[in-house]
Amino acid sequence: MTKIVIIGSGNVASHLFIALKDIDDVDIVQCYNRRGLALSKEENAVHLVVSDIKQLAKANLYILAISDDAIAEVSSEIPEGDHLVVHTSGSVSINSINNKHRRGVFYPLQSFSKNKHVDFTKVPFCLEAEHKEDLNLIKKIASSLSPKVYEISSEQRKMLHVAAVFANNFSNYMFTIAKEECDQNDIPFEILHPLIIETAEKALTLPPEKSQTGPAIRNDLKTIERHLNQISDIEHKKIYKVITEAIQNKHGKKL
Amino acid sequence: MTKIVIIGSGNVASHLFIALKDIDDVDIVQCYNRRGLALSKEENAVHLVVSDIKQLAKANLYILAISDDAIAEVSSEIPEGDHLVVHTSGSVSINSINNKHRRGVFYPLQSFSKNKHVDFTKVPFCLEAEHKEDLNLIKKIASSLSPKVYEISSEQRKMLHVAAVFANNFSNYMFTIAKEECDQNDIPFEILHPLIIETAEKALTLPPEKSQTGPAIRNDLKTIERHLNQISDIEHKKIYKVITEAIQNKHGKKL
Repeated sequence: MTKIVIIGSGNVASHLFIALKDIDDVDIVQCYNRRGLALSKEENAVHLVVSDIKQLAKANLYILAISDDAIAEVSSEIPEGDHLVVHTSGSVSINSINNKHRRGVFYPLQSFSKNKHVDFTKVPFCLEAEHKEDLNLIKKIASSLSPKVYEISSEQRKMLHVAAVFANNFSNYMFTIAKEECDQNDIPFEILHPLIIETAEKALTLPPEKSQTGPAIRNDLKTIERHLNQISDIEHKKIYKVITEAIQNKHGKKL
Repeated sequence: MTKIVIIGSGNVASHLFIALKDIDDVDIVQCYNRRGLALSKEENAVHLVVSDIKQLAKANLYILAISDDAIAEVSSEIPEGDHLVVHTSGSVSINSINNKHRRGVFYPLQSFSKNKHVDFTKVPFCLEAEHKEDLNLIKKIASSLSPKVYEISSEQRKMLHVAAVFANNFSNYMFTIAKEECDQNDIPFEILHPLIIETAEKALTLPPEKSQTGPAIRNDLKTIERHLNQISDIEHKKIYKVITEAIQNKHGKKL
């Protein structure tokens, strides 16, 4: 039985708590966060919480589901012992964890929202550990939540986080701009819903560079110019230009 | 029974042919394109094709599924008569069709690929016509293919096309960049697949501006700087900067 303490009170902490509490061979012995917040509404969750780090329970595994900036400090406050300390961040090195501990990373690559149920079977886990046996332990735990378990180094994870910013944050911003352009012209945004889903699904079957369409890759200068004239928002216009140029540069040789 | 001639030989022409040929009350009497290409491999499709516009059959409805630039010219070559001529373009005005005809627009808003089956029940149709009875005719035909039928003016359609460029072409380019960053670092792109699907699905339930996450909206300057240092591709770096600034400007007031 692996004794686990979950540290933190945000979305990742809550969703991991809810998922891990039902796993065989795992026993969540405590949750710690400064404000003493319960990680779910269950009675059991409330009893597990402490807000004073001096009351931290002994465990085999401490999961730091806290902000990137807090990882170094909070990990230094955990007393030394025969245990593994992992963080759950996409953008922080394994070395940010205080080196008095055996260290690892347990990074679920998904954007979690507070009130949306997370189906962990679809969440990829990116794992790293200094020691083979620790890696095996977190592999076993991750595998009990999801079939998508990857060993990813801190260097790779840094770049994966950048890639995720493009794939998630920036594509979402493209959807936001699309919605704003619809709203400004009394067009129901739902007209674009099937296109958005199709775009995402296509990117998984064909590689996305093969499914690129639109005026930029066709080098359709008339349409590009007309679009730029139509867009009144300066910021949207700038983004239209920069991405169009990038697509033209990337695919230009084929034209 | 509505007699239809389909003009053009590209993806839209082929997919519309395949979908319309099985609809009640519709009879595809001919397909015309300059190269005399059949729109499907069925024997019937081969017999229907003509490559000489002088052989154009009489019909109630001519569907121009051709490139934007060819709409004016090809529509001028169709003899005058008691019929409706529609184009299928997202970015061309209804007025591009020669005004000797009754005119309309029959625009299926989806990006079609040659070898991928199209489920038209998920495709929104954006319709426009000069005359009420023509609008009713194309509404009836579109409704027999899809429940998503919208009346959209030429002005609105122009902006919808811009919005679709952001929602489809540009988001796909974000996925392309994400894949390139993964490839360059030996990270399997499939790790990002669930995130891509989740991003698209979220944009349909929450409005996308509400589900924006990432370093830009958090105004996490340390992470933004680190990401910019990590990205070696100059084009990717430029796009990262421009979109980050746009997100910060849009959401800045909340910070």
